[in-house]
Amino acid sequence: MKQLREKIASEGRVLSGEVLKVDSFLNHQIDPKLMQAIGEEFSRRFKNDGVTKILTIESSGIAPAAMAGLTMGIPVVFARKRASLTLTEGLISSEVKSFTKQTVNTISVSGDYVTADDTLLIIDDFLANGQAALGLLDISGQAGAKVAGIGIVIEKGFQNGGKLLREQGVRVESLAIIESLADGKVAFREESEVR
Amino acid sequence: MKQLREKIASEGRVLSGEVLKVDSFLNHQIDPKLMQAIGEEFSRRFKNDGVTKILTIESSGIAPAAMAGLTMGIPVVFARKRASLTLTEGLISSEVKSFTKQTVNTISVSGDYVTADDTLLIIDDFLANGQAALGLLDISGQAGAKVAGIGIVIEKGFQNGGKLLREQGVRVESLAIIESLADGKVAFREESEVR
Repeated sequence: MKQLREKIASEGRVLSGEVLKVDSFLNHQIDPKLMQAIGEEFSRRFKNDGVTKILTIESSGIAPAAMAGLTMGIPVVFARKRASLTLTEGLISSEVKSFTKQTVNTISVSGDYVTADDTLLIIDDFLANGQAALGLLDISGQAGAKVAGIGIVIEKGFQNGGKLLREQGVRVESLAIIESLADGKVAFREESEVR
Repeated sequence: MKQLREKIASEGRVLSGEVLKVDSFLNHQIDPKLMQAIGEEFSRRFKNDGVTKILTIESSGIAPAAMAGLTMGIPVVFARKRASLTLTEGLISSEVKSFTKQTVNTISVSGDYVTADDTLLIIDDFLANGQAALGLLDISGQAGAKVAGIGIVIEKGFQNGGKLLREQGVRVESLAIIESLADGKVAFREESEVR
């Protein structure tokens, strides 16, 4: 997605060979018009797949997922990383390992809102090692829901999450794929060479 | 806001005299079209106040704030409740006490995105004791930003947050005000009687 790649190129900050900071439009400050364009692009790619609901995870997945839900005219459910006071019964949970933070989080969704009747589009802001996506796929499986695919705003192509998911036969649509962050520069993978 | 009151009346679940569960459209599952209508209503109420940026707090504030930002054509910043790996320098923080959870959370915003040049619209999903709103006001003050007002989706009128803020001269615009949750029923305050 050209508009997104240009935004990453102009505002993304490379903190290391592994870490790209996009706090000016996605992870802390949000650019609503760009999120709308991202939502419309996810809608374009998945509009013929019978998606009934979008599943994302708090917090940075919520804005792009909400805009996709608005365009597609379907509800959005965000998985919680923390226990909720009012969200207690009928939880479907999965463990998500964070390689960067070296922690394991339990993510949860209410079985009231993700069911065997759903065909889900999973949306997240970043795809790196794929652990969050695998956790959301696990939750979808526990609920008996179908998964049309996974929509990612920024995929770190140099980490193994995308490969891992695509080898499992999961359809992954990433709007921007970073080939490398070497030498403090963002290098994008050409859209044709998704592996 | 009639559409919101009707949604609360039809889907809200009263768990106690204090707790209203709206997980079907706001706090876990999100209704994007309703969030858009909420964003448009916040925009209508604050469109003449020179707002340059919306400030909210993860996670349930993000969807209504993003929709308001889209309508108003301005960026949204969400305060973080948890430490971020890439959000470390230049943080502006405040302590927020949760009466219900009996915890104190530090919420943080990057000084890069909330500055003395900004006139902020603070948006949150719920207003109860007002602690989160006070924390966001504290952060705004530390940044030297002006605050046009606070936009709340659902105010619990029987708790003291709204009174506390309005007595401080803060403009609080709540789209639905719950007068009482007694006897398992949601009773709304008439829009004219905001105190």
